[in-house]
This record gives sequence, structure tokens and C-alpha cells, in this order.
Amino acid sequence: MNKEIIVGIDIGGTTTKFGLVDHQGNVIFQSSVNTQNPDFREFLNDLEEAIWAGINSVDPTLKIRGIGVGAPNASYYTGTIEQAVNLPWKGVPIVKYMQEDFNVPVVATNDANAAAMGEAIYGHAKKMNDFVVITLGTGLGSGIVTNGKLVHGHQGFAAELGHVTVNPNGRQCGCGRKGCLETYVSATGIKRTIFKLLADYTSDSELRDISFNDLSTKMITEIAERGDFVAQKSFEYTGKILGQKLADTVAHLDPEAIFILGGLSQAGKHIFEPTIRHMEANLMPIYKNKVNVLPSGLGNQTAPILGASSLIVDYFKQNEF
Amino acid sequence: MNKEIIVGIDIGGTTTKFGLVDHQGNVIFQSSVNTQNPDFREFLNDLEEAIWAGINSVDPTLKIRGIGVGAPNASYYTGTIEQAVNLPWKGVPIVKYMQEDFNVPVVATNDANAAAMGEAIYGHAKKMNDFVVITLGTGLGSGIVTNGKLVHGHQGFAAELGHVTVNPNGRQCGCGRKGCLETYVSATGIKRTIFKLLADYTSDSELRDISFNDLSTKMITEIAERGDFVAQKSFEYTGKILGQKLADTVAHLDPEAIFILGGLSQAGKHIFEPTIRHMEANLMPIYKNKVNVLPSGLGNQTAPILGASSLIVDYFKQNEF
Repeated sequence: MNKEIIVGIDIGGTTTKFGLVDHQGNVIFQSSVNTQNPDFREFLNDLEEAIWAGINSVDPTLKIRGIGVGAPNASYYTGTIEQAVNLPWKGVPIVKYMQEDFNVPVVATNDANAAAMGEAIYGHAKKMNDFVVITLGTGLGSGIVTNGKLVHGHQGFAAELGHVTVNPNGRQCGCGRKGCLETYVSATGIKRTIFKLLADYTSDSELRDISFNDLSTKMITEIAERGDFVAQKSFEYTGKILGQKLADTVAHLDPEAIFILGGLSQAGKHIFEPTIRHMEANLMPIYKNKVNVLPSGLGNQTAPILGASSLIVDYFKQNEF
Repeated sequence: MNKEIIVGIDIGGTTTKFGLVDHQGNVIFQSSVNTQNPDFREFLNDLEEAIWAGINSVDPTLKIRGIGVGAPNASYYTGTIEQAVNLPWKGVPIVKYMQEDFNVPVVATNDANAAAMGEAIYGHAKKMNDFVVITLGTGLGSGIVTNGKLVHGHQGFAAELGHVTVNPNGRQCGCGRKGCLETYVSATGIKRTIFKLLADYTSDSELRDISFNDLSTKMITEIAERGDFVAQKSFEYTGKILGQKLADTVAHLDPEAIFILGGLSQAGKHIFEPTIRHMEANLMPIYKNKVNVLPSGLGNQTAPILGASSLIVDYFKQNEF
């Protein structure tokens, strides 16, 4: 029998990464194509050609077992990428098209759900039935697993924790509301906090020489490590708000662990320590010291591809092949 | 074959109600025993005698298929009633004892989870895979169903929505923290709100003649219907806080419906209307006008017994008998 692989695809605003994943969870080939093509069918042709080129370069006899797709606002139920702020298309039936082109099972869901499934299949959640994944990128994404299964909800839009409310009169959010969690806790959120702190305090700070658009979470982390008051305070503030809201999430789900992934999680103790401290301070006694807040068990580079490919592992598990 | 029934037991602080439920979900016999016996084994003997007496009075050939128990702080995983504020025992292994005494399947869980399962088996959630139940009694209890299954969480303590935080510096809560949802939204919570409003405003109100201990939600409802400013404002305030926090619950779970049960729900439009209005105002666009907020599909009297008995229906479903 020919060797089987799963194709994992992670569609991002700028580039779409994909990889070929073997039975052991190794990414044996990895590449990317440009996402910014307004013609979705053309984009998909480019992606499919790149997948075939990858297969041919590794071993032309490889058999595709299935294709998993993680994309912002992709609906698990309809297989369609709905209206995503950073993508050039809307309402595109990616699952239908790829099933026709490859004649294998194709499963799509939003990127944070894919990350949660990746953690369950390849990462630190292998033996967990109840856990939550938080991805801190441009926004805040999340995936929820209960009773060993991803929670999609009635419409397929469960786990939008970026849009729980911190303050109904708070910061303007891209969703049209105010005070959503992701306006405080995300790569963009912490930048907004930095600029608020620079306004509120008079302290000297390296951060006063950097524009909003130039500032990155990596820079904030490095500046915090040099002892900068504003940078350090921005992590404390971000962790406080995340910790308070995670306590509410625990009261809903009583999870075994909460994984924090994505760019801002790379700040390590700067973000984990205040988050855990404030979460614990807001937990009712039965939950205290019971919920682990952890980094991902997957490498930062391959995590999105493994997450997407794990959707297919899960698909075959559920259909008991 | 002898006719089979399920015994549904609802253990409350003062009385323990039980009923015999037939295959069609009819409560064919119903009675109660006193809960306030510090000797748990004695209490259980009284209860079991009353169950046998009930069976003998209806039809001595009835066969017990299983026993479902709803009780505050009962753990689904351990079958034990842990430390409940209003019960005279702690850490009592009710499932073990009743299994030994009756030699049939016995399942226990907290009363709000039992209510959720009752709604799924006998009520308005028969075809729903994703919904939430909120019980407004002395406190605020809740049950969560995702993917057609009750969410118990890692420790068995999921769905403690009474203890999400409204305000970290808010009202003192029985759990030892401050500002928990149930300190605002529950039979006790709305009484606290009434007394705050009587302090904050100078308006005349019938409520100024009633002591805290004498006041009931039924009285608040009647007084609101006579146009009393303070009574009406107390519902608006309660609904605002519940609606805001339910919007966060929707962002977690994307449920098809939220059922509101228990004494305070009997206030009807007084509590439902502001709750729905404020929930909608706090939902992100994808959820707006998609989540039904509904009263229970079960009668108020039999709901707890049907809820408890439904645990056994669910048990046999899951074990595919």
C-alpha cells in the first residue's frame, strides 16, 4: 500500500501555509502560497498546484487521506469561509471545491478550533476531554473541547472568546461593539494598552520612540526585559484582564487546562504569570489550583498545519474507519 | 413483562421530593420526605421506605428501571453529594448506597444539570444539541449541553454560572468571593437589589413596609404589576446584569436556546423582557436574534422530578440498552 499523508492548510491574511503530515504527525513537506488574490478560484488553483508539486517532490506515490483547512470564520457545518475581515473573499465554499478536485474528505473550521484539535491529537491535550485553547494573534481566537469533542455550537460559531465583554463602554472593536476582550488581549490589544499608558503616565520609556505601526509584541517583550515600566505594566494589565475573563470561562467549562498560543504567548512569563495570578484570584474555591494554564505542546511553526491536519485524524476517528 | 418506572429524586434544603415516572414521562406518583435529618443513613431509609410505599400504592409489580438524583453539589463522577451549603451532610456517597439497596443503575448530578437533561428528554430541548439552562432559585444554577451531551467538566463542576464575576468589588457571595452573578440574579439577588434601590432613591414604595426576610419574588412581581417604581426598576437591573452575562455565555457556546427556570422566572415578562433586550444589545452581530431565551417546557411542580428521572433515560441511551 502506498504511504498515506494528510494535507493541513492554514489560510492567513497574507500567506496560506500548507504541509504534508504523515501518520506519526511529522510535517514531511511544507510550503506556502500568497493569499491576496481576489479571485478565489485562481487562489485555489495556485494552492492545489503547490500541493501536487510538494507531493511530487517528496514521493509521487503518496496517497492523500484527507485535507484539513483552518481559516478565519470558516464554518464547520457549511464548509464555507464566511465573511473574514482579513481575507479577500466571502462566502467561498472551499470544502465543496476541494472535495471535487481531490475526491477525499475535506474538513474546514476556524483556525482556533483547528489549533484546539491539533493540541488534542499531537500536543499536550492528548489525554484531555475538557480544555480550552486561546490564540493571541492580531485578535483573540479560541477553541473549546468538552466531553472530548470540539464545541461548534448551534450555528457553528461557538468559542468567540475574543468577543466576551470586558467593559460595555470600553475600546472600539472590529466587530462593531465596544470593550470586547480582544481589544485588550491580543497583539493589537497590548499595543493599544501601551499607547494608553504612554498617555496616562509621564515616565520615560523607550516606547516613546516607536510608532504604533512599528511596534510589535516581540519589541514590547524585549523592552520589558530591560526593566521598562510601561512595557512591564502593559503585560500586567493584559494578564489581569485575560485572567479575570478566563475565570468566567472556567466557571462555564471546568476545564483541565487552558492553552495559550500565538505571537503574544511567546512573551512567556511576562504574559503567563499575571494571567495565572489574576485568574486564580477570581476563581471560586472548587476551581483554585486545579486548572493548568500552559503553552502549546506544538512547535510555533508547524502548529497551524498540524492543527488543520488533525481535523482529518478526528474525522476518521468519529467515522470509525 | 412488568411495567417499568424510573424514580426521580430532587433533594432540596428543606424537603426531598421524589416521583415515579413512566415510559411516557408521566409522573404517576409523587411524594416527599423531610431533608433535615443530620443522620444521612436515617434520611435515606425514610426516603427508600417512602419510595416502596409509593410503588405499593400504585402497583406492587412495578419494576424500577433506575434512579436519578438531583442534588446541590452532587458530583456526576463520584456519585457523592459534596459540601452543599443548605444540606445537613457532606461527602455522602448516595449513589453507592442506593445501588446497594435497589440493585439498579443510580445516577446523581447537581439539580441544574438534572433540569437541563429534563428539558432535553421531556421539555422544549428535545431536538436541541446545544443549549443552556439557568435556574433562578435562592442562588443561580446552570446546566450546559453541547454536542447533545451535558458538560460536566474535568472535575465534574462545570456550569457554575452563578459564580461568573459581574464586579470583582461587588456584593459579598456565599462562595467567599465578591460580585458573583448570583448575588445580583436570583431570588436573593433581586431582594438585595430592592434594598439597594430603597436606599438609593427616595420614592414612595409599598416595599418600604416589608422586611428583607418577609419579601418574596412573588410579592416583588405583584408590586411591580401595580406600577411600583422600585419593583419595576429591580427587574430592569436584574435583567440587565443577566442579559450582559448571558451574552458572554453565548460567545462561549453559541447555543440554540437559553431556558430560564425557577421561582424568579415565574415573574414572566418582568424578567424575560429586560434580560433578552440587554443580552441582544451585548451580542456580536453573528449571534443577534439567533438565540431563543425561553421558559421551561416542563411544569414547575414536576420539573425537578422529571429532570432527575431523565438522567436514567440518558444513562440507558448512552449505554445503548
